[in-house]
Amino acid sequence: MNTFTKEHLSVASNASGRKMHVPVYRFQGEEPGPKVYIQSSVHGAEVQGNVVIYHLIEYLKVTPIRGEVVLVPNCNPVGTNIKSGEYTLGRFDPVNGENWNRGYFFKEELINDFIDTLTEEQSFDDIKLAFRHRVKEAIDTELSKTWGIGLASRLNLQLQYLAFEADIVIDLHTGSVATRHIYVPEYAKDSAQYFNIPHVIFIPNQFDGALDESVFCHWWTLADKLSQKFPQRKWSVPVEAFTLEMGSQEVIDFDSGQYDANGIMAYLNYKNCLVSADIKPKDIARYAVYLNDYKTLYTQDGGIVEYNVKPGQHIKEGDVLAKVLNVDDLDNDNAVSYIYAPKDLIAILHFPSASVLCGTQLYKGFINYFKLPSVPVE
Amino acid sequence: MNTFTKEHLSVASNASGRKMHVPVYRFQGEEPGPKVYIQSSVHGAEVQGNVVIYHLIEYLKVTPIRGEVVLVPNCNPVGTNIKSGEYTLGRFDPVNGENWNRGYFFKEELINDFIDTLTEEQSFDDIKLAFRHRVKEAIDTELSKTWGIGLASRLNLQLQYLAFEADIVIDLHTGSVATRHIYVPEYAKDSAQYFNIPHVIFIPNQFDGALDESVFCHWWTLADKLSQKFPQRKWSVPVEAFTLEMGSQEVIDFDSGQYDANGIMAYLNYKNCLVSADIKPKDIARYAVYLNDYKTLYTQDGGIVEYNVKPGQHIKEGDVLAKVLNVDDLDNDNAVSYIYAPKDLIAILHFPSASVLCGTQLYKGFINYFKLPSVPVE
Amino acid sequence: MNTFTKEHLSVASNASGRKMHVPVYRFQGEEPGPKVYIQSSVHGAEVQGNVVIYHLIEYLKVTPIRGEVVLVPNCNPVGTNIKSGEYTLGRFDPVNGENWNRGYFFKEELINDFIDTLTEEQSFDDIKLAFRHRVKEAIDTELSKTWGIGLASRLNLQLQYLAFEADIVIDLHTGSVATRHIYVPEYAKDSAQYFNIPHVIFIPNQFDGALDESVFCHWWTLADKLSQKFPQRKWSVPVEAFTLEMGSQEVIDFDSGQYDANGIMAYLNYKNCLVSADIKPKDIARYAVYLNDYKTLYTQDGGIVEYNVKPGQHIKEGDVLAKVLNVDDLDNDNAVSYIYAPKDLIAILHFPSASVLCGTQLYKGFINYFKLPSVPVE
Amino acid sequence: MNTFTKEHLSVASNASGRKMHVPVYRFQGEEPGPKVYIQSSVHGAEVQGNVVIYHLIEYLKVTPIRGEVVLVPNCNPVGTNIKSGEYTLGRFDPVNGENWNRGYFFKEELINDFIDTLTEEQSFDDIKLAFRHRVKEAIDTELSKTWGIGLASRLNLQLQYLAFEADIVIDLHTGSVATRHIYVPEYAKDSAQYFNIPHVIFIPNQFDGALDESVFCHWWTLADKLSQKFPQRKWSVPVEAFTLEMGSQEVIDFDSGQYDANGIMAYLNYKNCLVSADIKPKDIARYAVYLNDYKTLYTQDGGIVEYNVKPGQHIKEGDVLAKVLNVDDLDNDNAVSYIYAPKDLIAILHFPSASVLCGTQLYKGFINYFKLPSVPVE
Repeated sequence: MNTFTKEHLSVASNASGRKMHVPVYRFQGEEPGPKVYIQSSVHGAEVQGNVVIYHLIEYLKVTPIRGEVVLVPNCNPVGTNIKSGEYTLGRFDPVNGENWNRGYFFKEELINDFIDTLTEEQSFDDIKLAFRHRVKEAIDTELSKTWGIGLASRLNLQLQYLAFEADIVIDLHTGSVATRHIYVPEYAKDSAQYFNIPHVIFIPNQFDGALDESVFCHWWTLADKLSQKFPQRKWSVPVEAFTLEMGSQEVIDFDSGQYDANGIMAYLNYKNCLVSADIKPKDIARYAVYLNDYKTLYTQDGGIVEYNVKPGQHIKEGDVLAKVLNVDDLDNDNAVSYIYAPKDLIAILHFPSASVLCGTQLYKGFINYFKLPSVPVE
Repeated sequence: MNTFTKEHLSVASNASGRKMHVPVYRFQGEEPGPKVYIQSSVHGAEVQGNVVIYHLIEYLKVTPIRGEVVLVPNCNPVGTNIKSGEYTLGRFDPVNGENWNRGYFFKEELINDFIDTLTEEQSFDDIKLAFRHRVKEAIDTELSKTWGIGLASRLNLQLQYLAFEADIVIDLHTGSVATRHIYVPEYAKDSAQYFNIPHVIFIPNQFDGALDESVFCHWWTLADKLSQKFPQRKWSVPVEAFTLEMGSQEVIDFDSGQYDANGIMAYLNYKNCLVSADIKPKDIARYAVYLNDYKTLYTQDGGIVEYNVKPGQHIKEGDVLAKVLNVDDLDNDNAVSYIYAPKDLIAILHFPSASVLCGTQLYKGFINYFKLPSVPVE
Repeated sequence: MNTFTKEHLSVASNASGRKMHVPVYRFQGEEPGPKVYIQSSVHGAEVQGNVVIYHLIEYLKVTPIRGEVVLVPNCNPVGTNIKSGEYTLGRFDPVNGENWNRGYFFKEELINDFIDTLTEEQSFDDIKLAFRHRVKEAIDTELSKTWGIGLASRLNLQLQYLAFEADIVIDLHTGSVATRHIYVPEYAKDSAQYFNIPHVIFIPNQFDGALDESVFCHWWTLADKLSQKFPQRKWSVPVEAFTLEMGSQEVIDFDSGQYDANGIMAYLNYKNCLVSADIKPKDIARYAVYLNDYKTLYTQDGGIVEYNVKPGQHIKEGDVLAKVLNVDDLDNDNAVSYIYAPKDLIAILHFPSASVLCGTQLYKGFINYFKLPSVPVE
Repeated sequence: MNTFTKEHLSVASNASGRKMHVPVYRFQGEEPGPKVYIQSSVHGAEVQGNVVIYHLIEYLKVTPIRGEVVLVPNCNPVGTNIKSGEYTLGRFDPVNGENWNRGYFFKEELINDFIDTLTEEQSFDDIKLAFRHRVKEAIDTELSKTWGIGLASRLNLQLQYLAFEADIVIDLHTGSVATRHIYVPEYAKDSAQYFNIPHVIFIPNQFDGALDESVFCHWWTLADKLSQKFPQRKWSVPVEAFTLEMGSQEVIDFDSGQYDANGIMAYLNYKNCLVSADIKPKDIARYAVYLNDYKTLYTQDGGIVEYNVKPGQHIKEGDVLAKVLNVDDLDNDNAVSYIYAPKDLIAILHFPSASVLCGTQLYKGFINYFKLPSVPVE
């Protein structure tokens, strides 16, 4: 069976001067195979991923794997512990507003320089090994700078250092009030059907600071540049990385966590990480969009809002999304106003509070969506 | 029909030096009758009361009243507008932590002094008039102090000044994640059946700073002291004041608001405020407790929590209330632990976040509860 | 020399489920003598007390003591670590606004019950021992309640349990932007001259939740009740407790910390805690008031404020305390307005931000102050 | 004399549904001349700029100008009014962490498209007029999007729309605890000596979201592309834009504000905005760096910090910048540790709180700085 080890990694220190740790759970299979890295709760209020990891560990205790699975739940010991009122202020560093999922490392120059060192004869395995080494070295250099680096980057880079070892990287998030959705790099489209997630966003090779991007942008750019430099050989992107959004923040649900762990196992099975498991994806409809068609509807005015469309619901252009109460006009026709869907859409998430200012992300939704083909299912 | 007027009252000024206003809606009946004062959202995230007031205004536009109804929605322009993350930090002054519903005025000495001025011959109506005048004068003195007063008190006193004019005072709140419940002073027990609220807390004559108390403690104490001083006459408490908790914070729901507006109208009908309305309370079970039996269960440890009991649910001692995930022990038997009900109880509300520290108010619930008798219903 | 031990006490657990510890430093003298308890930073942004404790420890390493000195720096691991913007949100629980220094235990009934158990023959030492035992038992009962208790109380009670063992209790705070001042219970007036603190507030036997009160109210009330019950014996209050405010929050200063440590050592010397030290108080003017004359000036309006009087400054009625800029009137005579001192006063502290709402504590100051007589000095 | 007008511009609406306004003060000279736009406090805690604008208005009431000066103090009505504890949480949107000074508009494509429409014959004045029109149109399009835009951008774009009309744009900020410094685009180097600001940062043509960049990047890029397209003509950048940091946040000081207003007037005089004023810059040393040499020193560990170097101080590599107290080691040699200057530097600002986590911006400073030549002075 799998070998299990657990350690605690010190990733930060707080105002008391105390070290802050993340737990690292590691399962090693008897057979060789892909390396998998899974983390959760880098946004401190998005706690459901921890439950998913709990259920994954339950699986991994009894399911022989190939290769290795590393799991880092509750990977942000700072963001998890900032309360403001009854909620967790977990999305950004309370000191400076930096998003906890925007400080990962990516430098295109590094890849250019790396490509320059390669010769036609080198095997892809050698190239991958050297590239991993090179990127991890660069991360290490960032972490060791004389002048230091900011907290979000510091935390992110230590996680990325672990993650960059892997062939498969899964970052577990949730939305605000949300239905399940997943970010999939366009080159890994085929993998989208293996998770049990009905809403899929295909994203381009563009770095915006998140973990999944910090992994796949490196490998995707490498593959592109290899294809340019050595066009006679065929190059693929050897690593996949995803962000999974499993429902709503501020909530945990064990049943739901088991469902999502099952979906991740189905994907790992598809990727040949499991020795002989019979775990297949669920037979559900999956709708996808390209990133440009994942739209945000911002409020034009502030006020108090009733959300009339549930995440996951399909609605038509002109349908009422929300009803706004205007407290200064309760006696007249302006008491209630409406916000309409600008297009046919699937609502994916909405803001978690009834009180909004102008410029608030009221809803996010899919427009111009399409259905994905099915794969063999459970 | 009723006469309607609207004004905006300046109750505070902000760091920009701008005045902050609350809307005051006023309906005056053609016939004399009780004065009613209703406010909402003194806790900024408890926005549902605004919807209830919207529906009350809809009623009052078409329902002839006796006396007067004054409605002040969104009565805390400061607390309504403090965001911290996506939620509203509406429960306390963000500067100093002072609860926005604990700065109202009550002084027993004032009542003692007032009683000393009375003679046996005075009519209760005269006494009430003089008492109102006296308390409002005292509030005014507080508001005019040379050295000033703190923001929460300042805001509260301006509202109390309006409210103290009334015979019936209703303060609209919500819980965190909660089922409907209502605070009823013990002397007004009979009124509890007229609202459409299934959970009732009977509270004693004890001032803790809230609006309802700041009204009824004055009148209740006055009645008690009158009974002592002039035992040969019979004295009742001439004013009723309630805090209604209509579901959960951070949410508005128009249907639910109509239901609660209907309940308030049924109560007002019972109190003879409506000329000829046929609005009766709903036929629902109503459970009550005395304040001591409204219990808070605090967490013993921090962690991530699944809430297994919904507000409104009746459970038995020993039933699982919540399931706790321990991220440092996901591989072993301590991964999941349970929090059990210490007694048979009705869950009334729970904490709105899955992330808790030790000492967090996890659940509040009724123990030793009893069913209230029914009244003629719809 | 003194025996030194250090331990870490677990006082809370956070949302990660991790234990949170406070360090407890303990010096035991070779000779018997008073027990001293000193803590700092229960308000998380008031960090200077930690520096004072550092310097006290430097002293205690080389200064033989009688009895015992227990030091608990950084005694609030929650409050110390809540950042909101660049500052520390350290004054109250960010979940519910509860002041971290208002959850200590005091129950007059306990003292009444205790007094009932005493007989005339018992020695004061026996009584003290029994009383300590009784109060600590009550604290323990609070901490062990089936339904639990709130975080601030939980934290406070664990500290009070340690502190109640002591004969001398010192709680190290700071003001916002402040000069040194100290709270002294009226019965311990004579001790006020031994600290090097120029501003003294004499406080009555009234419990408002703070640590010093939670100690001295118990002993003071006990002494009062003993005097009533056994008037033929002479009773004094055997324990002293103080809150020291050593300058401003959000700042540490090592030199200033040494100065204050020196003052505390001078007091301890006076109280016979040091074997043969030659540490005397400084020759400074000390001004005192009774609590009622320690006044807060609240703003009447919001705006932006220049503070024109430094903490420690003596000013006259009518002097300008602050200048307010009104951004909507920069072109006219209302551009600048003034806030005047309502009385002759010594400014003790002011609000730490230029931006104020109405109802903000702008200044606190002494009125009707008087000079304390001198004691033999350094 | 100058013509004065004042209006209030609605730039946002809050959760109460109320409009939020900024005051716009406008002085129009009798003679034609440059248009000047000055705003302050886009970061809500950086209030000193409002005082500077107050003093500028005092000047402009009596000093005849050429052209126009528009002044928008307190330009962020949201950020100014978010309190969290006693401080103002003014640097970023509390909902999502977005920096209030990073949502301005710049699109290089727009400039490319614009350049394509130009012919060799057009006068620069015509080009400028057309370009202004084009950029303002683009800003308007952003503001009118069907799906809306986020609050920070929304607020920023409305200000930029006003600012883009101007030839001179000045954005008034402060640092945390800071000495005066100014950001100057490299092409406008000569202007640096006219403000009374001793520390100058020369910045390249790189857009990072701030107001000054959103102005000068447009014009600078336009000038560069014009030089490329029409190399035979000589092109300069016709507009200057600066960010001035006038000391520390959370503080206002009228004298200091007058000093800075005087410096701005000296610059405006140099730019020919004043009819016949005799206002010259002060005779002070001015030190400058290129942006890369404006360094941030991040903490390696959390703890409590004494700042040993004042903003403005010149220190040597290896000098002590800060002293750190480690509360868990007060009894041993690790009690105090030191943070040293990695290079010779001028300290420009430091973090405003003694409590830091790892990864905190402890100090910012100039390395490789050089002295600017003098200009004729007062």
